[in-house]
Formats: sequence, C-alpha cells, structure tokens
Amino acid sequence: MKRYLTGIKPTGYMHLGNYFGAVKPAIEFSKRDDIDAFYFIADYHALNMLPNGAEMTDLTKHIACAWLACGLDPNKVCFYRQSDIPEIFELNWILCNVTPKGLMNRAHAYKAAVEANAAEGRDQDDRVNMGLYNYPILMAADILAVSADYVPVGLDQKQHVEMARDICTYFNNKYGKILKTPDVYIDTNCATLAGLDGRKMSKSYNNTIQLFCDESTLRKTINKIVTDSRMPGEPKPLDCTINKLYKLFATEEEKVAFDKALSEGLGWGDAKKQLYEIINRYISPMRDRYNYYMQHFDEVEAMLRAGAAKVRPIVQDLLSRIRHAIGVVDISK
Amino acid sequence: MKRYLTGIKPTGYMHLGNYFGAVKPAIEFSKRDDIDAFYFIADYHALNMLPNGAEMTDLTKHIACAWLACGLDPNKVCFYRQSDIPEIFELNWILCNVTPKGLMNRAHAYKAAVEANAAEGRDQDDRVNMGLYNYPILMAADILAVSADYVPVGLDQKQHVEMARDICTYFNNKYGKILKTPDVYIDTNCATLAGLDGRKMSKSYNNTIQLFCDESTLRKTINKIVTDSRMPGEPKPLDCTINKLYKLFATEEEKVAFDKALSEGLGWGDAKKQLYEIINRYISPMRDRYNYYMQHFDEVEAMLRAGAAKVRPIVQDLLSRIRHAIGVVDISK
Repeated sequence: MKRYLTGIKPTGYMHLGNYFGAVKPAIEFSKRDDIDAFYFIADYHALNMLPNGAEMTDLTKHIACAWLACGLDPNKVCFYRQSDIPEIFELNWILCNVTPKGLMNRAHAYKAAVEANAAEGRDQDDRVNMGLYNYPILMAADILAVSADYVPVGLDQKQHVEMARDICTYFNNKYGKILKTPDVYIDTNCATLAGLDGRKMSKSYNNTIQLFCDESTLRKTINKIVTDSRMPGEPKPLDCTINKLYKLFATEEEKVAFDKALSEGLGWGDAKKQLYEIINRYISPMRDRYNYYMQHFDEVEAMLRAGAAKVRPIVQDLLSRIRHAIGVVDISK
Repeated sequence: MKRYLTGIKPTGYMHLGNYFGAVKPAIEFSKRDDIDAFYFIADYHALNMLPNGAEMTDLTKHIACAWLACGLDPNKVCFYRQSDIPEIFELNWILCNVTPKGLMNRAHAYKAAVEANAAEGRDQDDRVNMGLYNYPILMAADILAVSADYVPVGLDQKQHVEMARDICTYFNNKYGKILKTPDVYIDTNCATLAGLDGRKMSKSYNNTIQLFCDESTLRKTINKIVTDSRMPGEPKPLDCTINKLYKLFATEEEKVAFDKALSEGLGWGDAKKQLYEIINRYISPMRDRYNYYMQHFDEVEAMLRAGAAKVRPIVQDLLSRIRHAIGVVDISK
C-alpha cells in the first residue's frame, strides 16, 4: 500500500472555501482502502505566522476538532500532531547539511517576500525570518520522516514536494539509499468557491463563510453576500454567487427548482434565506460533532496521541538508520 | 553558581596547537569550584564538514577519549554529546522563527564563503549549504538550551555568542522572559603554538604535531621541524621553533640549560632529540590514558550517557516552558 501524507496548518478558522477546496476532497480520499493515509497538524509550520501562544493553542484545538467533525476517521488514517514527533526536528537539521542554499533561494514563498521588498524599495531580506527561509527543509523532513510515497497537493504547492525530492536525492547520494523519494499527487478535485463579494473565498479577502459558526452568525454572514439591485419579481442571473453556493449543497431536484425560482424573480432576501437553510442543513450534523469535540478536548488529545504513537516508531526506526549512516552512533558497539 | 558552556567539534585529531591553545586552558578552567561547567561534543555541528559516517564515528571516539585523557573529569563537569539531547533540534526550529534572515547574512563563516565565491567569480551561494548558513541558530540552541551564563570563546568566535544573545532577545520579546541571555567569556589563556614550519600550528597548514600518536611517529614528526643550516657547534637562535616548543614542557632549570646548550652550538639533530624526550615525557601518561579509553569505548559511552542524563532534564524542563509559551501544549489541559 502506498503512503500519502497531508499536512494541515493551523493558521485560521475553517471556512467553506477551505472545506470544499481541500478538506472535503482530502477526507473523501482518506476513505480509500488501497492507501495508507497520514494527516498531521503542522503546528510548528504555523509558528511563524501566529502572533502568540494562545493563538497557536486555539487554532490547534480548532483545526483538530474541525477535521474530526468533517469526517476524518482517526481509526482509518494516522492523525497526528507534528510537535508530537520530535525526531522530525533532528531530521530537519540533518537535511540542512545536504541542502544547497541556492535551492532555498528559489522557494516561491521566499521569492515572493524578496519581490515584495524590492517593490517597496526595502532590503531584500527585510522582515524575512529563518522560519520562512527554512520552511521547505522542515517540510522535506515531514515527508521523508514517514517515507511517504505521495504528497497530495494543489498545483501551487508542487514545488515543496519537488524540493523534498531534491533534498532526498542529495542525502541518498552522500549516505546511501535510505530515504524514499516522494512523488507529487496533484489533487484535481479541489474546487474554488465564490466568497461573499464574488471573488475567490479566502481569508485574505475577508469574504469567507465560517464552517462552524452558530446559526445566527451563519445567517448574518449569508446576508452579507453582495447582490445586484434587481428587485423582487425581476429575473435573477443564474451565475450569481448565491446560486453558485446553493448548488454545492443542493440535490438535483433542488438545483432545478432554485434556478427556476431565480429566473422567475425570487427576491435576493428570500434567496439568501433559502441558501441559509440548505447550508445549515448540510452543516448542522458537522457543527454538532464540532461542538462535541470542542467540549471534549481530552478525547481529541487522546486521538492525536494515539496517532503519534503509531507514527513515531516509523520515524524513530528511520532516524536510527539515518544516524547509523551519518555515523552518529553508540561508540561502544 | 554560574554555568559555562563549551562546545567541542569532532572535526580533526587533537594536536599540540589545539591542546595548548584550547584544551588545556579549558580543562584547567573546568576544575574551578565556583563554576558549573558543561562540555559537549558538537557532533551535529561537525556533520557539515565530514565526508562520511565512518569519519564522524571515528572523530567522535577520538575527541571523547582525547578530552578524557587530557584530564576532563566527567564527575566534575557535565560531559555530553549534542546528539544525545534531541530537544536541542526542536529548540533550533523554534528559534528559526524569531531569527531575522539578515542576522544570518552577517555571520562570519557565511560571509567568508560569499567572499571566496566572489573572488572566484562564482555565484555568491555556490557550495554553501544550509548547515553552514543555519549554524549560528543551532549554536544559539546549544547555548540557550542549558541556560548558560557564559560561553568561553576565543575572540574569533565572539560573534556566535552575540548572535545567541540577539536570538534570545528576539524570543523573549515575543514570548516573555524565558531564555537566559548568555555572556561572552573571553579566554585570554589561549596560546598559539609554532608548527613544524614555524607558522601557527594548524591542521590547515599541515604543520601539526599530533598529541596521541605513538612514540615513533612523534619522533619522526619532530624530526620534520624546519631549521636553518647552522652546523653543530654554531650558536643557535633562541627564538627557533624547537626552543619555543621545548619551553612549553620544560621546568625552569631545563629551560635555562636548553638555552645555554643552543647558544653553545647544540646540533639541530640533538636539539630535536631532546625536544622529543621532553614532549614524550609530558605526553606519555596522557597517551596511556588515551589508549586505555580507545580500548574501552563502553566506559566512554557510559560517561557520555551519564552526562546526557544530567543535562537532558534541564533542557526538557526549559523546552516544556517554551512549548507552553508558544502554545504547543496538551490541548486537554
């Protein structure tokens, strides 16, 4: 069975865009019987982006509960927290020593920071820290630590896996074939969603619909969807944001009926109300599960620890072979 | 009691230059009763400079046995191996996230590599790897992990401690005063020694006298000391390499007698013979201890593990406070 590794960065609250774009396809994928799936909360990758410790803890709690609520089954996959596998950080250091600095200079995230600085006339490394710069090496350590065969990623993250492949090759060339070369698995199921303002739903546009807010907040958020000035009774365009979102949650029958209602002049207010109903119908059982987990962190913690207990021996075994290869050994043997 | 931390990189075989320049003063220092001294074998710092795993193991064995043979007392100091404290690598990653890239750009070793590349017309990062570039961060982790008060260094290594101070400040400013700010302790006892060719004794000049070679090799090496062409009977200059080395091992009486003999025309061959005798007299008991340890790696391994067992709880306690501050915690609590 091939091993697939997916990292989850706890840097924000899950919204519908994340859910349909990444979480739902990832969870459907995790149910396949012909794969060995690893999902980890990349807390130490998020460190760089969070203002303080409280946010790290909150977002870790949120993201763990959210993925469980969305249907990730910790009995079916390895679900663990990066920080529970400290061997990854020793591997990270080892990999630094075979990684040319030139490779890091070509990383998209670093290059974007350099370009932004250039555009503002600042020093190229202004506000860049070593967490950002070293990011691809830690990511390589995550991947190589579990000998992943495939890393499912969107097209924009392909480079990270390619860099992990490069670093893997540099190591194996120096110390022998110990690390498994990972492959990119491009997930084409990833949808992009329209946000409140019609642009792609994204935290950075501040146009998201939170997945696990309460009903009243959900209703208020949906009411903020930007519409045109057509009055009730006037036909509405079928490619409007409300209809796009409605389609994600509707049965075939409901889709036809909603298209008809819009064409016949359904008012925006009523359309939003129907959208709220159908989203809430979909989300309700997930929200219940989410709220349950948020009130039972002990169960979530236990699941994450059980996940780490499955993964850690795999990493420890690999690290011990790596240590043997690099000569960091018990000298009495 | 103030805590002093000294790192020992296993990158070469100990020679007289190392011994008088660093090892002897460090060991004398370690005997003070008013300090808490930590000495660690920085194997993961050496990784970058070693061609393969066999060399790492050999040099780790050598350096551990050599320091013990020179008189380091593992009952008096904490003597441990960096790789036995894996928490250092997690701390290393945490520190990356508060370290500006600009700080690393100013590191002497990196700047030297950039300048060498520029002189040869190569890309500035040619042959620079991320082990070299990240080196000051791992060094900061070594220092901060044990809350060292002082780091004894030669003037040329002052920058590493200054960088550790900077990184410490960045962390404490963001997360609260958890890390202790280390101070530089400039060791002025460090002598430089003349090598076989009269230049400073250094591995890179290939002019060293190994500390733990056998008697026949020691004799042959001393015979290679470069002299002038004065014949036996002609007075010899007192500032010759042979006399400089002789002085390090001689009693006051012997010094006077040797000066006199050289002035009165002692032949170079005889002078070398006397130098051999006096060096060998000094080294013999150390060499015996060295050979003993090299035949009893189990004892050395046990000492290093006992050292790690003393140091690791200190680091674990600090790391647990750091994890709490950055929010990487058991979510059930």
